[in-house]
Amino acid sequence: MKIYDTKTAPTPRRVRMFLAEKGIDVEYVQVDIVSGENLSPEMRAKNPLGKVPILELDDGTTISESTAICHYFEALQPEPRLLGNTPVEIGLISQWQQRAELYLFMQVGMCFQHSTGYFKDRMNPVPEYGKEAGINAQKFLHLLDKHLAHSTYLAGEQFSIADITAFTAVDFARVVKIRIQSDQVHLQRWYDAVNARESARA
Amino acid sequence: MKIYDTKTAPTPRRVRMFLAEKGIDVEYVQVDIVSGENLSPEMRAKNPLGKVPILELDDGTTISESTAICHYFEALQPEPRLLGNTPVEIGLISQWQQRAELYLFMQVGMCFQHSTGYFKDRMNPVPEYGKEAGINAQKFLHLLDKHLAHSTYLAGEQFSIADITAFTAVDFARVVKIRIQSDQVHLQRWYDAVNARESARA
Repeated sequence: MKIYDTKTAPTPRRVRMFLAEKGIDVEYVQVDIVSGENLSPEMRAKNPLGKVPILELDDGTTISESTAICHYFEALQPEPRLLGNTPVEIGLISQWQQRAELYLFMQVGMCFQHSTGYFKDRMNPVPEYGKEAGINAQKFLHLLDKHLAHSTYLAGEQFSIADITAFTAVDFARVVKIRIQSDQVHLQRWYDAVNARESARA
Repeated sequence: MKIYDTKTAPTPRRVRMFLAEKGIDVEYVQVDIVSGENLSPEMRAKNPLGKVPILELDDGTTISESTAICHYFEALQPEPRLLGNTPVEIGLISQWQQRAELYLFMQVGMCFQHSTGYFKDRMNPVPEYGKEAGINAQKFLHLLDKHLAHSTYLAGEQFSIADITAFTAVDFARVVKIRIQSDQVHLQRWYDAVNARESARA
């Protein structure tokens, strides 16, 4: 089993952090996305969308999309649970995971891609949309700060995949100059707690 | 238990179809998103993001985000399984669910919102981005057609949540004039098979 990874990119970091929380060691193979190694025919045979991370099993089966890779490992080794146990836990963690993914992680990513033109060789950046995406991300951080005033982690008292998604998004947001504001004390308290975990170094 | 629903919108349709496949009956409460009923203080107390669908349990717990509601019901009543059973099934279904969500469903939604200005009272449409999103959706339909040449459903031989997400996206795509092309015979074969299921009327 191996994972095609890019150490500097925010999406594969989510998987590394998830696996570190579970204490699962996997071989990582570095892919240079700046030079477009992820778009080679060999890599497209593993993931036609040309993205990392990709999990490759020993029988050649490949699974892409960071959330999907996490679902695979949660099913393979349930403890410690990062996707919940009871139906309500599973539902609430999935809710916060989706919110963190769609309204924060993706917005930061779109802000980065459309504002900076970093991947302009392989997409058409629309700077005006990049700006909107950045505003959306900031709005979600505001909502998150209010929520974290009465919740230890995103989905309650239990650390989960939703925290990994939001934490890696907040860290990456620095590249587009989106930061936790000085009055967002609950968000900062949560960030510091997640950042203190060993998995944050994975 | 009840679900706050909007009969005409594509996202809540995913949950109705999922529950129809499982044979689960739930009370649906209609919310008028055109007049902004979803943005009222009462609805924002249930989902601060002001979106439907929302599942409300008898103890008042609310779960939003269609995928999260599906995860809740899969845990509550596993059969028939729409999110997979073995780790590999779960991983591959989640992979196709994420792809259908991010590269098709969301792209169609962004194309609609940014091209038509339908929600311009509550967001800033960027028509140039709407066009890009439409191109992204069409690219994914092309990829899906090639994939379905050798796969009955998105994640293999088994109907899953990924088919529901892609099917509801293809149906909604008509409003932005994105349709299955006449040479996309595999995609059309799949669409017809899903459309023939009773759950497609839910």
